[in-house]
Amino acid sequence: MIDEISVVYLESFQERRLKDPILIEGLPGIGQVGKLVAEYMIRQLGAEKVGEIHSIYFPPQVILDENGLARLARNELFLYSTEEKDFLFLVGDHQSASSEGHYILADHYCELAAELRVKRIYTLGGFGVGHLVNEPRVLGAANQAGLREEIEAAGVVFTRAEPGGGIVGAAGLILGLSAPRGIEAVCLMGETSGYIVDPMAAASVLAVLSKLTGIPVDATRLNDRAAEMEKVIESMVEDGKGKDEELSYIG
Amino acid sequence: MIDEISVVYLESFQERRLKDPILIEGLPGIGQVGKLVAEYMIRQLGAEKVGEIHSIYFPPQVILDENGLARLARNELFLYSTEEKDFLFLVGDHQSASSEGHYILADHYCELAAELRVKRIYTLGGFGVGHLVNEPRVLGAANQAGLREEIEAAGVVFTRAEPGGGIVGAAGLILGLSAPRGIEAVCLMGETSGYIVDPMAAASVLAVLSKLTGIPVDATRLNDRAAEMEKVIESMVEDGKGKDEELSYIG
Amino acid sequence: MIDEISVVYLESFQERRLKDPILIEGLPGIGQVGKLVAEYMIRQLGAEKVGEIHSIYFPPQVILDENGLARLARNELFLYSTEEKDFLFLVGDHQSASSEGHYILADHYCELAAELRVKRIYTLGGFGVGHLVNEPRVLGAANQAGLREEIEAAGVVFTRAEPGGGIVGAAGLILGLSAPRGIEAVCLMGETSGYIVDPMAAASVLAVLSKLTGIPVDATRLNDRAAEMEKVIESMVEDGKGKDEELSYIG
Amino acid sequence: MIDEISVVYLESFQERRLKDPILIEGLPGIGQVGKLVAEYMIRQLGAEKVGEIHSIYFPPQVILDENGLARLARNELFLYSTEEKDFLFLVGDHQSASSEGHYILADHYCELAAELRVKRIYTLGGFGVGHLVNEPRVLGAANQAGLREEIEAAGVVFTRAEPGGGIVGAAGLILGLSAPRGIEAVCLMGETSGYIVDPMAAASVLAVLSKLTGIPVDATRLNDRAAEMEKVIESMVEDGKGKDEELSYIG
Repeated sequence: MIDEISVVYLESFQERRLKDPILIEGLPGIGQVGKLVAEYMIRQLGAEKVGEIHSIYFPPQVILDENGLARLARNELFLYSTEEKDFLFLVGDHQSASSEGHYILADHYCELAAELRVKRIYTLGGFGVGHLVNEPRVLGAANQAGLREEIEAAGVVFTRAEPGGGIVGAAGLILGLSAPRGIEAVCLMGETSGYIVDPMAAASVLAVLSKLTGIPVDATRLNDRAAEMEKVIESMVEDGKGKDEELSYIG
Repeated sequence: MIDEISVVYLESFQERRLKDPILIEGLPGIGQVGKLVAEYMIRQLGAEKVGEIHSIYFPPQVILDENGLARLARNELFLYSTEEKDFLFLVGDHQSASSEGHYILADHYCELAAELRVKRIYTLGGFGVGHLVNEPRVLGAANQAGLREEIEAAGVVFTRAEPGGGIVGAAGLILGLSAPRGIEAVCLMGETSGYIVDPMAAASVLAVLSKLTGIPVDATRLNDRAAEMEKVIESMVEDGKGKDEELSYIG
Repeated sequence: MIDEISVVYLESFQERRLKDPILIEGLPGIGQVGKLVAEYMIRQLGAEKVGEIHSIYFPPQVILDENGLARLARNELFLYSTEEKDFLFLVGDHQSASSEGHYILADHYCELAAELRVKRIYTLGGFGVGHLVNEPRVLGAANQAGLREEIEAAGVVFTRAEPGGGIVGAAGLILGLSAPRGIEAVCLMGETSGYIVDPMAAASVLAVLSKLTGIPVDATRLNDRAAEMEKVIESMVEDGKGKDEELSYIG
Repeated sequence: MIDEISVVYLESFQERRLKDPILIEGLPGIGQVGKLVAEYMIRQLGAEKVGEIHSIYFPPQVILDENGLARLARNELFLYSTEEKDFLFLVGDHQSASSEGHYILADHYCELAAELRVKRIYTLGGFGVGHLVNEPRVLGAANQAGLREEIEAAGVVFTRAEPGGGIVGAAGLILGLSAPRGIEAVCLMGETSGYIVDPMAAASVLAVLSKLTGIPVDATRLNDRAAEMEKVIESMVEDGKGKDEELSYIG
């Protein structure tokens, strides 16, 4: 019988001793904000792939690469090492397709983190507000009260948008499921309309995460992409206005 | 692998011998009636938290408190002790997100009740009627025929609103699943439109439950909230009338 | 942990040796035809209840009786004995709420049948045609080719309404899952619009089943109910015509 | 308890040693393309049935044959042998009804293939483009980079229609799940509108598969059916045009 979840590490990784490892989760979600940030960092930093995760809780499909090569939907682990610290990135194609699967996968990620002696986890996501955002703030949540001050100092806003609000999926569950394992976890959410893949929100989250982790990441290309996106949206809004004027003139 | 359901008790609670314990369930549901009553009693009585329940059958999310502190969706157990009796309250964020999960969770609650030697369970809920209710009655159901007389004496109405009708979710399943364990169980349902969080229906249920359990609960604040709500609804109805008059005048 | 399915027999039933037992399944379904027939036979024959089945695959609710007494959703087994044969009836509140649950429950019923040495199973249902049917035929299906002749002789029509058509739920799965256990099984489906609880279709099925099993059942009350229903429908059709005439007159 | 998946082989098949076996999967899917091709080959080649697969992950129903004989929804294995090679065909009524079931079934098929020492798997399907296709191409995907050249030489196009696109269900998952077992797997997808059962797309796939496997299959009857379908569609399009002309004339 197929395993519910299977994790395969690079052999060289298994023998490695990680230095005060930090885990950064950026799976698909609102505005693809978390995914954009984590994948951008992996590319900019040249992080190396060290593990692959498959699960029957992912949607039942394969992904094709540009050469028609098929592979199962998967999540991946990447490693970036500095002199003092190791940074793990958890990225991938999908989150769980079922409610129970979300719990089972997130718990598995936290178990992996515990085995790898991860000290802190950053989960990245978007915070959908339903309208365009000019200067997206980064909202925060944490699984220990003591973390707030440090995170706020990096420019993150701790405010509940709605009473009783929550965080759905991996970015939230990892906070809850890592707490009893003694792992600090912080969720960073870039404000986003929620309607588009949002590099502007991603740039805001990247700036904060860069400060918090002390990893210098050249944000130029992400900022460029955000600037382009901004122009596209502006021109769409302009076009919209133009039409309205014409219409009111005609009317 | 993560447990389907995990229950953690306060250490001091585990050593405790309960006196003729009564369990009061008030999980989210129609009009949030059960939740309002149970949480109001917990606050008024100063009941202390003694246990916490997590499950993969809850929706996959964390809840944020006002400080941005995240915690898993959960159910909680509170204890209120009088000289003669111990009262347990089962409250929480959510019921199960799946059909099978409802059975598995409700059975687990009944198993806990049996272990704690609970003699009787009150499950609280709303009975949705689809229109505003002026003086909400409290409808009842029980898992033993012998209970009816006592419950009716407290002002509860035993009447099947529709032939073949039932009670969906924890408030119902706990009645069915506690019966073979020899635990008496009564469901108290406040009449409610079903469209709003309904403190009026909650006040009706509280009055009855207070009589049945012999716990004196100061209902002032719940009654105040009900009175406020009543005014809001009245003014909305008035406004509605007002508009209609204006419209017919204009017309 | 709660059992996925639990079956409890009357003690006296467990010691009993059944004579060439026949199982008749009449669970809820299209037009409630199977349920009407089986429950009518149980009442008319005074069959005694011998077993009760609960499952987490049923919808998560309790059913209230006229006294507000709550019980879990369930299926039941009834027994009617003649000199030569024992007849078991499988009836109940619900079928499975999930796709896998349908298989697991139907397989369990077939396993029970095998343990009780059941020789033949009749599954009862409706065949929805989407329009009113004046003289509902009884359509048949079987799990062994040799059964067809006998069933046709009782007035049942073997015809595939649509190529590749099938029978969904217990009435169908029991045919498929009893075959490898060497149990003969026949499905009898009364033609019905599918929009209403249909005593006319039920009367047709009852007549056929009575012939096939050799159980004489006084069909008067079911026929009366069918006749009443027929009148109600006729008057509704008449009313409909009346309105149309008026409208065309006005127009 | 019923098995999640059960596989029964013909006795004579179990003792058989297969020669360099190739597995061809043609389960229901977009335009029924894969199903049409595989079932056509089975009929034309006179392949013999050697196995049957049942599962609780199939939809909960039985299928009726023309004589009213009911059988469970199933998948089937057929065998066609040449001097040098054995060809297995996997066909059936349904794919999984649930997301997890898709993984569990596809993994089971790959496990069977490994046990039978299958060297290569062809999965067949349709590629829905949302509009009528005159000369349907055959698109390809593979689970090993080295396969592409050979497959392209047979006329298959390797092109990603959309970035990040994938293949859902058995035809895709089998590629992903056979790779770690060292089995080569290729998916052949006939371009199709996706709205109709499409013999034209099937004929294209058959031609390619025939070349790749070296099995000569007389495609006459499938081509005839495709030609008929083409005429039907043309006349429908004509009719459509006719009406438009009339309408614009009237207008």
